[in-house]
Amino acid sequence: MELYSGPINKLIEELAALPGIGEKSASRLAFHLINMPKGKVERLARTILEAKEKVCYCRECYTLTDEDICPVCANEKRDHSTIMVVENSRDLAAYEKTGKYTGVYHVLHGAISPMLGVGPGDIKLKELIERLSSDEIKEVIIATNSSLEGETTAMYINKLIKPTGIRVTRIASGVPVGGDLECIDEVTLLRALEGRTEL
Amino acid sequence: MELYSGPINKLIEELAALPGIGEKSASRLAFHLINMPKGKVERLARTILEAKEKVCYCRECYTLTDEDICPVCANEKRDHSTIMVVENSRDLAAYEKTGKYTGVYHVLHGAISPMLGVGPGDIKLKELIERLSSDEIKEVIIATNSSLEGETTAMYINKLIKPTGIRVTRIASGVPVGGDLECIDEVTLLRALEGRTEL
Repeated sequence: MELYSGPINKLIEELAALPGIGEKSASRLAFHLINMPKGKVERLARTILEAKEKVCYCRECYTLTDEDICPVCANEKRDHSTIMVVENSRDLAAYEKTGKYTGVYHVLHGAISPMLGVGPGDIKLKELIERLSSDEIKEVIIATNSSLEGETTAMYINKLIKPTGIRVTRIASGVPVGGDLECIDEVTLLRALEGRTEL
Repeated sequence: MELYSGPINKLIEELAALPGIGEKSASRLAFHLINMPKGKVERLARTILEAKEKVCYCRECYTLTDEDICPVCANEKRDHSTIMVVENSRDLAAYEKTGKYTGVYHVLHGAISPMLGVGPGDIKLKELIERLSSDEIKEVIIATNSSLEGETTAMYINKLIKPTGIRVTRIASGVPVGGDLECIDEVTLLRALEGRTEL
């Protein structure tokens, strides 16, 4: 049975398809949106479209940005010889929040996962290797999540880079196993950075 | 410090302003939206605007609908002499889901709350009284929430309608079916005790 009228049902359905939004919060959200002033709803819709439109990959590190080169890569004060490899832009932001990491990043946009059918070719690994050959890189810090996929990706990257002679390190497991980088407090993140070990 | 680029920050901010979405899920949602195929994002934005555009109040019961008269009010098989008063369209849907209620509804779009500055004039009460005078109404079932605001509203409505001689009832409050006694708050337990019925 259709509980609500067509446009409401359609909206609830679309919202419920987003991550972390169940059917109940989708309907709550839908009614909130419908009761919001028209101008605000239009602004939200416009903001969503604009973000989608304007945001692209940084030419250097592939994080999401609305510029050609992201602020971190464009910053000449950062140590461009140290690259921290992260799974996504949110993980990059988590390390940026500590304010203590001075190197640059490389965003993979995923992790190798045979289970989900994500292979090395599906993430920005080729791009990482290209950066290593063209730049004067001294160290690659692998900061993928300490999940099965993150560890697999770390081992894969290590195997790729080791032969080049570049130092490869892995953030320490002060990060709880199975934890998501973005959910971890800054102290733990810093401890993990300090305790990084040779691979 | 700006952690993300402008359009992403703006999107996160707008999403975090929605009910039930914290900063963390807002950023998760924002990145999900940015990574979604462009066509899907456009469809979502369009659905939001369309729902806002097309949805209006039912001329009879004031529920949200995209028609002049909602399907419940338009249904001649429903008992139009019994009106259930609910706070919002979601509460209406909750009772519709039971499939057992055969009367019609009246949606108040809120509850009286001196704390929040919501008075009787701010909800669809005048409209309820108008319906009572024009239609052949036999019973008004008050199904506002059993919160302070819902109870206040129920009492207010009862005082308004009682003099007209129309039967006014209130849905029972007590322990939910299948509920575990030890998980239920004391007020509910006491209410359930007070409202006990002969077996």
